[in-house]
Amino acid sequence: GNEAAAKVAYALSEVVAIYPITPASTMGELADAWSASGTTNLWGAVPEVVELQSEAGAAGTLHGALQTGALGTTFTASQGLLLMLPNMFKIAGELTPAVIHVAARAIATHALSIFGDHSDVMAARTTGFAMLCASSVQEAHDFAAVSHAATLRTRVPFLHFFDGFRTSHEINRIDLLGDDDLRSLVRPDDIAAHKMRRLRPTAPVMRGTAQNPDVFFQAREASNPYHDAVPATVEEVFAELAELTGRRYGLVDYEGAPDAERVIVMMGSGSGAVGETVAKLVADGEKVGLATIRLFRPFPTEALLAALPATVSSIAVLDRTKEPGAAGEPLFQDVITTFAESDRPKVRIIGGRYGLGSKEFTPAMAKAVFDEAARADPKRRFTVGIIDDVTGLSLDVDDDFQVDHPGRSAVFYALGSDGTVGANKASVKIIGYEPDLYAQGYFVYDSKKSGSMTVSHLRFGPEPIRSTYLVQEADLVACHQFGLLDHFDVLADIRRGGTFLLNAPFAADELWEHLPRTLQRRIIEQELRVFTIDAARIARELKMPGRINTIMQPCFFALIDVMDVDRAIGAIKESISEAYGRRGRLIVERNDAAVDLALAELTEMVVPSELADESVADTLDVLDGVAIHDFNERAFVEKVTMTMIAGQGDLLPVSAMPIDGTYPTGTTRFEKRKLALQIPVWEPDLCIDCGKCAVVCPHATIRMKAFVPSALDGAPEGFLSKSFRSRELDGHLLTIQVAPDDCTGCGICVEVCPAKDKTQVKRKAINMAPADEHRDVERERWHFFTSIPELDRAAISHDSVKNSQLLEPLFEFSGACS
Amino acid sequence: GNEAAAKVAYALSEVVAIYPITPASTMGELADAWSASGTTNLWGAVPEVVELQSEAGAAGTLHGALQTGALGTTFTASQGLLLMLPNMFKIAGELTPAVIHVAARAIATHALSIFGDHSDVMAARTTGFAMLCASSVQEAHDFAAVSHAATLRTRVPFLHFFDGFRTSHEINRIDLLGDDDLRSLVRPDDIAAHKMRRLRPTAPVMRGTAQNPDVFFQAREASNPYHDAVPATVEEVFAELAELTGRRYGLVDYEGAPDAERVIVMMGSGSGAVGETVAKLVADGEKVGLATIRLFRPFPTEALLAALPATVSSIAVLDRTKEPGAAGEPLFQDVITTFAESDRPKVRIIGGRYGLGSKEFTPAMAKAVFDEAARADPKRRFTVGIIDDVTGLSLDVDDDFQVDHPGRSAVFYALGSDGTVGANKASVKIIGYEPDLYAQGYFVYDSKKSGSMTVSHLRFGPEPIRSTYLVQEADLVACHQFGLLDHFDVLADIRRGGTFLLNAPFAADELWEHLPRTLQRRIIEQELRVFTIDAARIARELKMPGRINTIMQPCFFALIDVMDVDRAIGAIKESISEAYGRRGRLIVERNDAAVDLALAELTEMVVPSELADESVADTLDVLDGVAIHDFNERAFVEKVTMTMIAGQGDLLPVSAMPIDGTYPTGTTRFEKRKLALQIPVWEPDLCIDCGKCAVVCPHATIRMKAFVPSALDGAPEGFLSKSFRSRELDGHLLTIQVAPDDCTGCGICVEVCPAKDKTQVKRKAINMAPADEHRDVERERWHFFTSIPELDRAAISHDSVKNSQLLEPLFEFSGACS
Repeated sequence: GNEAAAKVAYALSEVVAIYPITPASTMGELADAWSASGTTNLWGAVPEVVELQSEAGAAGTLHGALQTGALGTTFTASQGLLLMLPNMFKIAGELTPAVIHVAARAIATHALSIFGDHSDVMAARTTGFAMLCASSVQEAHDFAAVSHAATLRTRVPFLHFFDGFRTSHEINRIDLLGDDDLRSLVRPDDIAAHKMRRLRPTAPVMRGTAQNPDVFFQAREASNPYHDAVPATVEEVFAELAELTGRRYGLVDYEGAPDAERVIVMMGSGSGAVGETVAKLVADGEKVGLATIRLFRPFPTEALLAALPATVSSIAVLDRTKEPGAAGEPLFQDVITTFAESDRPKVRIIGGRYGLGSKEFTPAMAKAVFDEAARADPKRRFTVGIIDDVTGLSLDVDDDFQVDHPGRSAVFYALGSDGTVGANKASVKIIGYEPDLYAQGYFVYDSKKSGSMTVSHLRFGPEPIRSTYLVQEADLVACHQFGLLDHFDVLADIRRGGTFLLNAPFAADELWEHLPRTLQRRIIEQELRVFTIDAARIARELKMPGRINTIMQPCFFALIDVMDVDRAIGAIKESISEAYGRRGRLIVERNDAAVDLALAELTEMVVPSELADESVADTLDVLDGVAIHDFNERAFVEKVTMTMIAGQGDLLPVSAMPIDGTYPTGTTRFEKRKLALQIPVWEPDLCIDCGKCAVVCPHATIRMKAFVPSALDGAPEGFLSKSFRSRELDGHLLTIQVAPDDCTGCGICVEVCPAKDKTQVKRKAINMAPADEHRDVERERWHFFTSIPELDRAAISHDSVKNSQLLEPLFEFSGACS
Repeated sequence: GNEAAAKVAYALSEVVAIYPITPASTMGELADAWSASGTTNLWGAVPEVVELQSEAGAAGTLHGALQTGALGTTFTASQGLLLMLPNMFKIAGELTPAVIHVAARAIATHALSIFGDHSDVMAARTTGFAMLCASSVQEAHDFAAVSHAATLRTRVPFLHFFDGFRTSHEINRIDLLGDDDLRSLVRPDDIAAHKMRRLRPTAPVMRGTAQNPDVFFQAREASNPYHDAVPATVEEVFAELAELTGRRYGLVDYEGAPDAERVIVMMGSGSGAVGETVAKLVADGEKVGLATIRLFRPFPTEALLAALPATVSSIAVLDRTKEPGAAGEPLFQDVITTFAESDRPKVRIIGGRYGLGSKEFTPAMAKAVFDEAARADPKRRFTVGIIDDVTGLSLDVDDDFQVDHPGRSAVFYALGSDGTVGANKASVKIIGYEPDLYAQGYFVYDSKKSGSMTVSHLRFGPEPIRSTYLVQEADLVACHQFGLLDHFDVLADIRRGGTFLLNAPFAADELWEHLPRTLQRRIIEQELRVFTIDAARIARELKMPGRINTIMQPCFFALIDVMDVDRAIGAIKESISEAYGRRGRLIVERNDAAVDLALAELTEMVVPSELADESVADTLDVLDGVAIHDFNERAFVEKVTMTMIAGQGDLLPVSAMPIDGTYPTGTTRFEKRKLALQIPVWEPDLCIDCGKCAVVCPHATIRMKAFVPSALDGAPEGFLSKSFRSRELDGHLLTIQVAPDDCTGCGICVEVCPAKDKTQVKRKAINMAPADEHRDVERERWHFFTSIPELDRAAISHDSVKNSQLLEPLFEFSGACS
């Protein structure tokens, strides 16, 4: 979505003011990259892309550029949009053509959320900008063009928005507008008129004056005709776009039964889920429909009335925002106003919130809304998608309600660093380029910066894909990291009879007993086929350790059955050649070999009919051994934190959440991610006690303690220590210890370690070693290490501390996290 | 209003974060001054007042202070409030008690406006703050206390707002809340609870986390009960306030006929004008009423329905904001929603805008709204207070409709620097302290920084004064500056038989022929009594030149007949003693003498029955002699600019205004303010050609030209010049000339002039001299001076220019403004 919008924005701009903010950053980054590489806009010039110190600066730059007659744009979201508001009021007040593209995102309230909803754009609805909402990747592309064309025709600036992540980060097959299309939509006369209005010394005018009470109000009304003209102009541009491309849009688009009684009114990506629901329900004979608002400001009152069948008696308006204390959410109030002032017989209108902070919004939820709209005494205000056991606003959702899709779907569990997302994006493209095949990719990241889990949701099929929610009954689930099975129920959303592809360090005939029992149960009950491959081993053997994506991708194509496997393998090899060709033939050949080996080694496991007698524990009891001082805190951590860590946060009801965003501290200790593939191992005989490893560790997972020898009582066998070289602490021992389950394996400790073995140049006092070989031993050592008492600081004279450089890291860093 | 609110805010705060912005600055300035002088809050501590780098910083400081458990507040308006939005979302999301006091002001759009409307607070309605609106000075005081009390009880932060200027800058007699009142409203337990929630190392918690899609939505709903509880809590605090003070407020207050059919719903100061109108119309038997919204967020749906009589069939909602493209303005949509969801039979609701940028809002306009609400086919959307000949939204207003007031009113025309406003504020206080007398003062400034005209509007009477509009039929009009008569129709709003007090440099029996004919006509037709005094002369004679306020104030009391004159004179002398006591007895005696002399010299003019045969021109034809290159520009200047300069901008229709705030440049040349009492006069024989006077003049009204002697052909008699001391420009002459009608009389030119007469220490090459003696001559010289051609720069070699320090100012400053 971001690329689809940015492509148009860049082609139609001379000045692009940027400042990065998730999820809009991609638009600015692309524009910046295009400008740097000399890509030209529609008129053969390279747009000037300027990164400012904040979104306030970006908005000011846009405002200034527009006043010089430049065609200008910017991209933002959330708080970034808030910082643009002062300039937006002025840009609109001065009737200056401009487009701000927004990947709509939640505004930080009780907590920050980088995810999507409409609270940011709703905070901008007072500015006087026109607002056009795209609800799919194709629309993000089309409406970007419509916005740039319409703003030049109307002089009213446009805020073009689409849902953060759900649309901005979705990959989908779209039809691109060509230069000729854009040239046809954006009329030279409008551009010339804009440029004639620029501030210039040869025909000076004055803007940005101060007006007193005598004339401000009159002047504020003088622009009315320009705003009034926007809806008709947008319709005009829509019509021209339809002429060029065949894609027809209205200010409000209706779909569903022509004699619908119940209708949902909404805007944004959620209309994909509702549209699918409507299609299914109408096919079942229900009289329901969906009105999708395209132009939100100026609000298209007449178009909304015209779009809705006269038979409608019950409307549910869905808002993806929350304004505490409002008489109703914004779109709801607009619809209420529209009907209250119309000649229609009284229609019952209820309003609900959904999808805040990218909360999933599924056909089952849409169905729940239609059900509510059918009730004699519905909730006037509701939420959907959560369980509200506090104010009771939420609707019950029947999760069994699902929409059937032609085509196939797949879900991939992997780690952020293992290349899976990149490979999946490539797969979507390979399939999307096939004639008559559509493809969609959507990628869920947790918000850990390093070693995060990624879940890829892919759909393919013969029809355009408008499912704007996660895959629910996957034909194929792939798990690219065996370790994830301990923590996540990766088969929760696979269809009966589906395929499970597992990268495992075990042969097919040894695999079963290594699977968690939950998984075994699901495999049997769901009658799954299970395929396995030891991708890590193959990668190591091919001297490309860790690069499992090249191995897993062909396995996926072999199993998903969506296109000819040979064609797919050919395409993969082509992309390998493109990606690595510059690095030499050897690399290309290794990757090609990986592809071939993958297909050769992929093995189907024979699924036993019974659970294995023994297997790994279903869940790790990570609370064990952790001191929790407060019962309530423990209860909170058990109920809330651990549920979230287990990826089940969606199930938490409203009552489980802090009312004001206040959390207990130090709960990261309950989340042992064990994501390091290599961990540091200490060699006491080489150590010079400098403590640099402990100082630099970005996750504070290497720790240093000095202690009296008696502290070693009860130490596990092989616990390491050495004499502490300190005059002040005579007779003390020193241990440097890693917390193996917290370490991310970055290796910075090794890099800073100055203690080299004189005989072996590469050996230091800290060295990285395979985690699977060392983790258990180091964990036992770590547990003992944490029990060694801290030195009594009072017993050490201040002077001696001050004079001992060696002690600095000790006292700076010990005890910060126990 | 600002002082009334700040007094409470200061008493109830520990940290006050400030940044100045009109019209809220006074609140911050007062808090700063109180803190500097050691004034304590309710608990005996001196609040910390911190001025930040912008309102963004003030909001951040407030947010941070609140998290430490401090009781915090800030003051702002307009763009300042926009900069606070990001922090406001967080303060509200974290359920942190806080109050932001806003003197509501227009947001800059096509033009900046420092004046009042609700566009700023409306842009903050998405934040989750509760919003409480005061509509008078008393309410600004009371509701400040209610806000601080209610925020502590509910944990929902409050935005307390009142109309910029109309309320923030109105002086009115109010009852102050005592410390015991405040102590009773603000409960210790609530404060303790707030402090227990503070961030602290001894009981650490975490706030400001990031939440992912799994739980953000649930957490966003978890605070619902807190917002839901706000209306009842505000009612509870209102009830306690009533118990303490007898002043009763509701969430929505209704006044008018108990069986009203037509009702206006609104909030803010305009309810004063509507309330008076309702009282008059109901007395005339009309079934009308007014519902004033106090609590705007959370919107008090039930209270609104409860407040309005069941008989209401037609509602007009007035919004003091404009959101181009909205389906309706915010309050209008809230009322629509309220009724659409109620069981009431269908009520017709129309919505209008009024008072943008402090546009006057009078009883006549309120009457026009009631008239519209009575029509069979009213405008669904309208404006009132302007003439909209573009989109036809405005209502016709019958300006003859006025409300009768008990008591007296007075209007004063003066200059910003002459002390009139200060004296009038003192007069309001003198009268306000009388038992059973109420007083109101409101002061209209133009936005010129220096030498601006001020118009003071004073009302006095036996009843509380809630007329929230300018005085319309003044009992007394005083003009403290004779020069203003040329430009302004100072008697436009005087009642028949009223009193005109004029500070004039003419004796009573010589005055008539010096008055503009318009004024003469009004005096005769309106049967006015005219009193005159030469205050400037008296002030000079008492060696306090320019300080005419001490002389005009007793004249006002002698004529207005609102309280015993002797008591008033006594109070004036007391205030003189207070104000000047520290400066010594001589100053006090002079001022006392001025008071006595004023009463002695105040003389009534015998009004002739006929216009004088000759008098000064009615209007200056300032366009004469100015080169206007473009017909359209001239038309614009004549129609718009000159109308505004003449103080008649209110009469300009919408079509007269630029749609986007674009103006022709250089139109200040059409506004000859002639406000200098002293102007600089040049002495060529002392001048050393340095040009410093021209360099430093802040209004560029002193200019320097070098020219060939032949350029003096046609010079007026006595035009001054001297030989230009320059090797490069041999044989040239030099003239330094003031533009006497543009000069503001600041005297900086004299201060920088280094050319002193060696015999007379105080005489320089530029000296200030009385403007009335020199203006005509200098104006003639100025006109000739502007006709002297500029030197041909190309004829002067670059090197010679570079080497001639003398020429620098010449080339820097000549020609910048012709």
